[in-house]
Amino acid sequence: MKIGKESVPRTAISTSDEHSITVRGADLCHDLIGRISFTDYFHLLVTGQRASAAAIAVLDATLVAIAEHGLVPSVQASRMTLAAAPDAMQGAVAAGILGCGSVILGASEGAGKLFVEIDQQAGPDGDLAAAASAVLGQYRAARRAIPGYGHPLHKARDPRVDALFAVARAQHVHLRYIAIAEAVEAVIPEVLGKELKLNVSAAIPALLLGIGFPLAALKGVPILARTAGLIAHLTEELQRSIGFALSYQATRELVFDGVAPAN
Amino acid sequence: MKIGKESVPRTAISTSDEHSITVRGADLCHDLIGRISFTDYFHLLVTGQRASAAAIAVLDATLVAIAEHGLVPSVQASRMTLAAAPDAMQGAVAAGILGCGSVILGASEGAGKLFVEIDQQAGPDGDLAAAASAVLGQYRAARRAIPGYGHPLHKARDPRVDALFAVARAQHVHLRYIAIAEAVEAVIPEVLGKELKLNVSAAIPALLLGIGFPLAALKGVPILARTAGLIAHLTEELQRSIGFALSYQATRELVFDGVAPAN
Amino acid sequence: MKIGKESVPRTAISTSDEHSITVRGADLCHDLIGRISFTDYFHLLVTGQRASAAAIAVLDATLVAIAEHGLVPSVQASRMTLAAAPDAMQGAVAAGILGCGSVILGASEGAGKLFVEIDQQAGPDGDLAAAASAVLGQYRAARRAIPGYGHPLHKARDPRVDALFAVARAQHVHLRYIAIAEAVEAVIPEVLGKELKLNVSAAIPALLLGIGFPLAALKGVPILARTAGLIAHLTEELQRSIGFALSYQATRELVFDGVAPAN
Amino acid sequence: MKIGKESVPRTAISTSDEHSITVRGADLCHDLIGRISFTDYFHLLVTGQRASAAAIAVLDATLVAIAEHGLVPSVQASRMTLAAAPDAMQGAVAAGILGCGSVILGASEGAGKLFVEIDQQAGPDGDLAAAASAVLGQYRAARRAIPGYGHPLHKARDPRVDALFAVARAQHVHLRYIAIAEAVEAVIPEVLGKELKLNVSAAIPALLLGIGFPLAALKGVPILARTAGLIAHLTEELQRSIGFALSYQATRELVFDGVAPAN
Repeated sequence: MKIGKESVPRTAISTSDEHSITVRGADLCHDLIGRISFTDYFHLLVTGQRASAAAIAVLDATLVAIAEHGLVPSVQASRMTLAAAPDAMQGAVAAGILGCGSVILGASEGAGKLFVEIDQQAGPDGDLAAAASAVLGQYRAARRAIPGYGHPLHKARDPRVDALFAVARAQHVHLRYIAIAEAVEAVIPEVLGKELKLNVSAAIPALLLGIGFPLAALKGVPILARTAGLIAHLTEELQRSIGFALSYQATRELVFDGVAPAN
Repeated sequence: MKIGKESVPRTAISTSDEHSITVRGADLCHDLIGRISFTDYFHLLVTGQRASAAAIAVLDATLVAIAEHGLVPSVQASRMTLAAAPDAMQGAVAAGILGCGSVILGASEGAGKLFVEIDQQAGPDGDLAAAASAVLGQYRAARRAIPGYGHPLHKARDPRVDALFAVARAQHVHLRYIAIAEAVEAVIPEVLGKELKLNVSAAIPALLLGIGFPLAALKGVPILARTAGLIAHLTEELQRSIGFALSYQATRELVFDGVAPAN
Repeated sequence: MKIGKESVPRTAISTSDEHSITVRGADLCHDLIGRISFTDYFHLLVTGQRASAAAIAVLDATLVAIAEHGLVPSVQASRMTLAAAPDAMQGAVAAGILGCGSVILGASEGAGKLFVEIDQQAGPDGDLAAAASAVLGQYRAARRAIPGYGHPLHKARDPRVDALFAVARAQHVHLRYIAIAEAVEAVIPEVLGKELKLNVSAAIPALLLGIGFPLAALKGVPILARTAGLIAHLTEELQRSIGFALSYQATRELVFDGVAPAN
Repeated sequence: MKIGKESVPRTAISTSDEHSITVRGADLCHDLIGRISFTDYFHLLVTGQRASAAAIAVLDATLVAIAEHGLVPSVQASRMTLAAAPDAMQGAVAAGILGCGSVILGASEGAGKLFVEIDQQAGPDGDLAAAASAVLGQYRAARRAIPGYGHPLHKARDPRVDALFAVARAQHVHLRYIAIAEAVEAVIPEVLGKELKLNVSAAIPALLLGIGFPLAALKGVPILARTAGLIAHLTEELQRSIGFALSYQATRELVFDGVAPAN
């Protein structure tokens, strides 16, 4: 069945024949393998453009910052899945990635959209604080959460935020979105009536929009980063399984508050 | 319910408190962010060991070699999934990863196991050709396919194989598993009665076992690499959707050979 | 790390000890196995309530209506996944389910929300046409699509719609949501300026809300139904694989419109 | 790229045109919706054959027996995934299904293969105990586990086993595979030197092979059953989230036994 107007598929990413594989204007075997890092290649694949050394350093920093954060829920889901289906590592990785949704990790994309709105509201010479205030006011009126701010545990900024901002400054990339991210943090108390500190999900787009990484691909960054962490956890799981122990602990205090059989 | 002996979960990968995140013996914010590439970090996460520059170059080369190969079945599955569920990029990535199984990509792990068997069969000073012959003979007797050899299209070696071997030689890493991989290729005609060339799924473990990458984590390498390619395809899909066009084309010549209603 | 207020998990669905399994107030082995159909049990699991025979007939009809519709994109994705990873049927089913998103199948939940809004807008004695007009006007003002109406192929109503409505009428269940669904169809031309016929994604909630099936579980109905169809396709795939043939056909007319290497 | 010999896709399950949908020789709208239960339809989809009322009762009983067993690891993984990505129920169901692997649930398929081997070894008039002994001896020699026997908790038979066998006997279906399953249980002490009782994963194929359900589709039965249970849990999760509470409890006693930073 034909759905939509387009019926001939097109792609601009890669093509191949019996003798060569072309990716984004380069010959994979001659120009890329052995000549480009995986991070650099990820940028090329997504954007079609070669990145500066500074941009790659920034992209590396964001991927390193969020690849691993211990036995978070999605890592637990992934390890439980491997314990139950040890032959299919791909299934366990997939289960872990499926937890990269709107509440966890996915906030990066939401924060990126917020920063782009503020950038456009302010225009090239406008006041960022005023623009941030205006856009946050609209979020508040629509009862939308502010993605990328606040943390269940920390009242202070997540230490990864300052480490990431330091990398951007040291690499001299475009810092406008960091300025926007900090403007948001500064006006939150006045708009929302409480402090919410910048968290790592806001820092990621603040850095990546500054190197021209596309908004549509932002959600892919936590997914790629987390895949690396998942593979480490699944390798450990194969050597020393804790998937069922996690599951056992999780339900030690479980309360059943449903209905018991009649008799 | 307690399944298995272990009931207290343990991990050696990372831990954190309110002030810091420790990963594999390093402070994430001070020692890693901005100081280590994503590839280097992936190696550290999986192995717990810091890699040499040569080892990182080899790992980068393998990730670059297999991240993208056009609209292969798993990429099609992923793009169709995003077209149907555009709000959930994580679901589309998961669908693509689920195709990294035993037939496609997963052959890397199988080839790695084969090379380790031959290595052990030969011992430190043994003849690799003889050991390869002996182990292949066992595979043949058990009617097992030889993972990592032969290709549906190419009679010659996949061009990525030589590019990868060149990187390993240029970086002066341990070349024993490349020697084993080539010994297998050389004895296949005599054991199986036909030529099957080394493909990229054999080249990956030939390089990675040489840098001490653990066999149990081998399957993770194509998964991580392919995730980068999937994100590029999904970013393109959001900008210019072909998921439904692929699906339409796929069934243009579909034959229904089931039973029609009686009426 | 503690996220959210609640730290003790609770469930009302089931509990078990060494001697018995209790599900929704019944003893699984004595009261349910052999005494209740799978559809009846699905209703009990989700709602905690025993259904009338009429309600079960309606739920059966909706599950039958949407379990199978040929080689739709998500079935193709599932079969390609099994071809690539034949040892992991669970992975191929998961890949197929991941396509049950907002565009395909997921429209059931959206249509259900629309009907509940109109029900509340009309109140117990209000005019459904006026309420439908008012709510559709709000959707239009917010540029939201009307979920469950229109079809890429059919101008007439999908034939499954009338078959489903006939079941509801024959079973004498609550017909209010069918009346609402038809009121929406009737006012669409005047609100949107074009005809859009009720499709199966609107018929599903029109029936299920009428038997008291919860809105929050509506999305689960297409997922469960489609899982049955996927298992049939995957069983056929194991016997007669077409996953790679679909993939080959899909790209026969593929256009590469990216950049070629410079040389 | 063409992989494999076949390039024209074929299916015998269903076809449709603008006016009708044909499934397994029946007109979906006239012959099936409202006339067949979901379980009956599942059997028709998978086998292409209409089932007897007895066969449907048996299939219903197996689906009911294994749809729900509390907060098992895959349900926990699914609920954690929904807590993290609440907009994508399909992703949470997929995560739960990915745990239907070889260790949990997947044992049904393995047990089914074992019973078919014993059936063939015995031949039409052979002694089942002798055949069971012979085949178990081969499993033992190959150090393969006996799928479907033993339980982490129960020394006695799982109570679901007798409930299922009672249904098969009451429905007068073919009981040969139940006889084989019990023959295996009886010879295990002599072959393995310890008692292992029939568990539900052996009871499932013992019933389903007896109604002619295909071995290749056996793994689909726990997957379909479990999907119903997952949807109930995810509906509860949307109403009263415990995904993060489970994750918090799971790591309360977590031991980090890795390396601390040097500083």
